[in-house]
This record gives sequence, C-alpha cells and structure tokens, in this order.
Amino acid sequence: MVTLHPHERLDDLHRNGLKIIQNPKLFCFGVDAVLLTGFVKVKKGELLLDLGTGTGIIPILLSAKTEAAHFTGLEIQEASVDLARRSVAFNGLTDRITIDQGDICQTEGLYKPSHFHVITCNPPYMNAGGGLTNPDSPMAIARHELCCTLQDVIDCAARLLKPAGRFYMIHRPHRLTDIITQLRERGLEPKTMRFIHPFAHKEPTMVMVEAIRGGKPMVKVLPPLVIYQSQGQYTQEAYDIYYG
Amino acid sequence: MVTLHPHERLDDLHRNGLKIIQNPKLFCFGVDAVLLTGFVKVKKGELLLDLGTGTGIIPILLSAKTEAAHFTGLEIQEASVDLARRSVAFNGLTDRITIDQGDICQTEGLYKPSHFHVITCNPPYMNAGGGLTNPDSPMAIARHELCCTLQDVIDCAARLLKPAGRFYMIHRPHRLTDIITQLRERGLEPKTMRFIHPFAHKEPTMVMVEAIRGGKPMVKVLPPLVIYQSQGQYTQEAYDIYYG
Repeated sequence: MVTLHPHERLDDLHRNGLKIIQNPKLFCFGVDAVLLTGFVKVKKGELLLDLGTGTGIIPILLSAKTEAAHFTGLEIQEASVDLARRSVAFNGLTDRITIDQGDICQTEGLYKPSHFHVITCNPPYMNAGGGLTNPDSPMAIARHELCCTLQDVIDCAARLLKPAGRFYMIHRPHRLTDIITQLRERGLEPKTMRFIHPFAHKEPTMVMVEAIRGGKPMVKVLPPLVIYQSQGQYTQEAYDIYYG
Repeated sequence: MVTLHPHERLDDLHRNGLKIIQNPKLFCFGVDAVLLTGFVKVKKGELLLDLGTGTGIIPILLSAKTEAAHFTGLEIQEASVDLARRSVAFNGLTDRITIDQGDICQTEGLYKPSHFHVITCNPPYMNAGGGLTNPDSPMAIARHELCCTLQDVIDCAARLLKPAGRFYMIHRPHRLTDIITQLRERGLEPKTMRFIHPFAHKEPTMVMVEAIRGGKPMVKVLPPLVIYQSQGQYTQEAYDIYYG
C-alpha cells in the first residue's frame, strides 16, 4: 500500500523490485545519482550518510547493492523528506534507512562528529546566481547552490566522517579545481576519480570523486565511464549500472 | 654539418626536416614531450620558455608548429645544454631558440619576472626517494625530482609568466591533487586539462594541464587523448601529433 499525493508517481528502480515515489513538480532524481551508486564502495556493517538525499534514491539503491548496517538520508526540504520517507516505508526499508530533515550546515543536534564510515552526496551543481526566476522553488534548491554550497558539503563530510572514512561525490568537471582544493584543505584527500563521458570522444559532463579522511596524497584516475556507444544505445557498463 | 660525440645519434623529428641530437647515455625525449607540443597554444610574436628543456625537443618542435617570436630553453645539466645547442644550430634555429644553462630555482640573473607569455615543462615525474642507485646520473636528474620538485617548477612559472600568461605541463595523473592545489596557490588557475590513455578503456598514464596566471576558476576537461586504437596501431589523433 502506498499513498500518492497529487502529481506524484511510483517509479520502478529495476533493482530487487524497488520502487520510488517521485513528484516532477518537486525534483526527480537524475542519472548522476544512479551512476554515483555504482561508484560508491560500502562494506558490511558500515554506517552511511547521504547529504541532500532528495527522493532518497541513493540510500534506497545502495540498500540493495550493499550490506551497510544503516543508511541515513539528510534533506532540508520538508516535501522531499515526506516523499522519501513514504518510499522507504513502501519498500519495507524502515529498519535500514532513516530520512532526517535538517540542514547540512547545522548537524550538531542530529549527528555526533566522526560518526559515519561513508558519506555520499549528489549536490546542487549550479551557482546561486545565474538568472533564477524562483529561488524558493524546490527544483531551484535541488539544482542550485541556494541552501548549500560545495564548501558546505565538504565541510559537513569532513566533520561527520570517521578517520579513514570515505566521501563520494558526483559533480561537474568544470568545478574540479574547487573540489580538489577544498577537499584537501579539509583533510579529505582525493583518492579515486572517474570522469563520465556521454560518448567516448566527447568531453566529460560529470566527475565522481572518492576522498578519504586523512588519506595519503595519491589519486587514481580510472578509465573513462562512457554512457552511450551510439545514439540511444547504452554501453554495457552503463547498462549494468542502471539495470545490472 | 654536425659534430656528433661518442654515443650520440641524429634522430629525424618527422617535421619540416628537423633533426635532433640524442645520447641514450644521457636522456632521450619521450612521447610525453611530443604530446605536450600538440597541447600548447602559442600565438604569433609571443615569448616562450621551456623549463628543463633537456635535448631541446619542445622548443625545436614548437619552432615548426608556431609563430612565437622567440623560444628559450632552460636546462641545468651541462651535457644536455651542449647537445641542445648543437641541435639548435644544426637546424639553423639559433635566431629563434636560445638554450640557457641554469637552475629553475635561481633564475634572477637570467630572466626578469613576468617576462614570458608562455611557459612549458615536461618535468621529472618521480619522487626523489625510491631506490635510486645513482642519484647523480643525468638520467636520474631528468626523471626524478632531484634538482627540481613539482613545487619548484610551479613557483618558477608563477614568477616568470606575464599576467594572463599560460603555463603548460605534462605529468602523471596520480599527482593531480598536488598539481591542482599548488597551481592555484601560486595564482596559476587550471583552465584546461586533458588525460592521455594508452587505450580507450584504460586508465590515463599522463595528464596535460593549461593554467593561466590570474585566470578565473573554471576548468575545461577535454575528451580523452587515446594513443593506440589497437596494439601497435596509433589512433589518427596521436599519429597526427607525432607526424602531422
């Protein structure tokens, strides 16, 4: 049983029968969130926190892909929190996934410092400026750096990760210098990086970064992750991440 | 006419009839130097400095590819300086290329600050430690950070580039965090980056970076540069850089 509010729909995640509630008037998750779940490494028994969890897509997918002890999704927007909680309940995951409402800049009352083994984030990519017609809209908050900047995300991860804990983020390649310098400044050393290209010969449109709290300075750049082998035709690797 | 010393050979550069003197007992240039010359952008009338020029390969190749007003190659090892100067003379390039002997950490007597439009460098990639049997050998100095570290190279470029001048470097991807953070710290903002992959599905083995003195923070990651399409068979792009 699931209660769907106006404009909401129940989407199939093509994995272990999981479904997710989405509302196109709020924000629907993108391929970036799914791709990030293919990059994240979670060990049995670990505690994971997803910053700005939105629909809860990352903890819901990772609940099927990993043996973490518990997943927490932190989300600032009340409507998204409500929607994510109903998705968690519908999938029978209330014992494995908690959705908290809160601001990543003010986590003192919610979590102890150095508490999580793994932190994930698919943050807003766009700068706060740039011709926003309605900066209070849920869509704008999910996509633009209105409620949290890149620096806020990295500060939060640095504060809440255990020593040697792992931070996973997906972002735009043009922010790479900001990402790398801010991670190192906060003691989160970039260890693995993977660029995502729509086609093999095109520029990357996204980059995934794994950083380790207190890690040694040496980063491994993985082979390109290519999404399409021809127009509309996924590469085997992309297909496996989406449906495998 | 060219005077070749023992162990030296005269190699064809497959470009405008250019040739270069090399001595395998000293150091022979690698594909990385040639690839970097395909990445560098030089405008007509500009002044270029190549740090640690070795055989002089970068200025010699760029003399054919660009319309720079003048090229300077700075090299610390006397035997390489002598060899590079003979290559410059043999190619009739003494009016366009100057080879100076000197240390990139002590350029005060050689060049005025903020003098060059473009600075290039194919620096030693390896850390100074790591089981070096003969740290005084010319080969070790060319390959290991014995006479200059990454930080020395970046400090030198930041000192000698004009405002808005361009710095081009090729290095190993595993040093990317050091490269990016040190460039930004010295006011050389990374603007373009290209990873070089031996094969399309392999990890990159090299990365080329363009940084602009005082540039705005936004970096463009180019499509992968792939060297081989199959074993022993260059891609068209690599072929064009080597022989085009």
